[in-house]
Amino acid sequence: MSRFETQMQAALDQARAAGARGEVPVGAVLTDASGAVVAADGNRTRELSDPTAHAEVLVIRTACAAAGSERLPGHTLWVTLEPCAMCAAAIAAARIRRVVYGAADPKSGGVTHGAKVFHHPQAHHAPEVVSGISAPDSAALLIEFFSNRRHPV
Amino acid sequence: MSRFETQMQAALDQARAAGARGEVPVGAVLTDASGAVVAADGNRTRELSDPTAHAEVLVIRTACAAAGSERLPGHTLWVTLEPCAMCAAAIAAARIRRVVYGAADPKSGGVTHGAKVFHHPQAHHAPEVVSGISAPDSAALLIEFFSNRRHPV
Repeated sequence: MSRFETQMQAALDQARAAGARGEVPVGAVLTDASGAVVAADGNRTRELSDPTAHAEVLVIRTACAAAGSERLPGHTLWVTLEPCAMCAAAIAAARIRRVVYGAADPKSGGVTHGAKVFHHPQAHHAPEVVSGISAPDSAALLIEFFSNRRHPV
Repeated sequence: MSRFETQMQAALDQARAAGARGEVPVGAVLTDASGAVVAADGNRTRELSDPTAHAEVLVIRTACAAAGSERLPGHTLWVTLEPCAMCAAAIAAARIRRVVYGAADPKSGGVTHGAKVFHHPQAHHAPEVVSGISAPDSAALLIEFFSNRRHPV
């Protein structure tokens, strides 16, 4: 298992925990420049009644509060699904160095799909982007979740 | 003074209060379908060490928490500056009916500039957008703020 896949497994654990809470199963982990995990969380939009409580926003807010800074230079964000436009812009605002994501999200993604937030100078910062890490595992979680919602046992 | 301008004055008051706190002076107000103000706030990214604490995100989070819902159908968001891509995507996620903003933001905007978040199907919801309301007042606040930062007395 590559180093990328090892960190993504931790994000997948967060995604599974989110799914168990009835949230869309997406998870994220933030590591600092040394590779240490500084935050890990999954979607909590339902629990918190907060449309901004995506996994990415939650780990950014947690890590920034702990660092006492609006910026996280040198950090890597690991997330099981392609970030939406909101999360991509939050990642740019936080000056995160690198984003590693699992499955592509043609329906709601904002990195390689739709708004392509990092492709515009208004983002002010464009992280390195690595995609497709453990993508089948990430996609399987989402497919199972939505399949169960549409056809409850 | 038009109804639009009256509500925007309340957003401008929030922007001035943000500037007095040392934050970039942008303010926002949320009104429900009856026109009642349900949340009002200004930027707090420095105070909270939170890059997502833009005025728009703060009023959405406050109003959603009070409503116990991730969505605010029928609501109007009044904001002194064109929302960035993060805020635009949060507005779409919250299904806000209408966005009224003051000054255009070619540098960081994500509605009519750059990512143009509402123009892509990945946003899932595109609010009505009204721009240019009390724009000179909004722009004057920002120009004064950045001018003072660059040339402190």
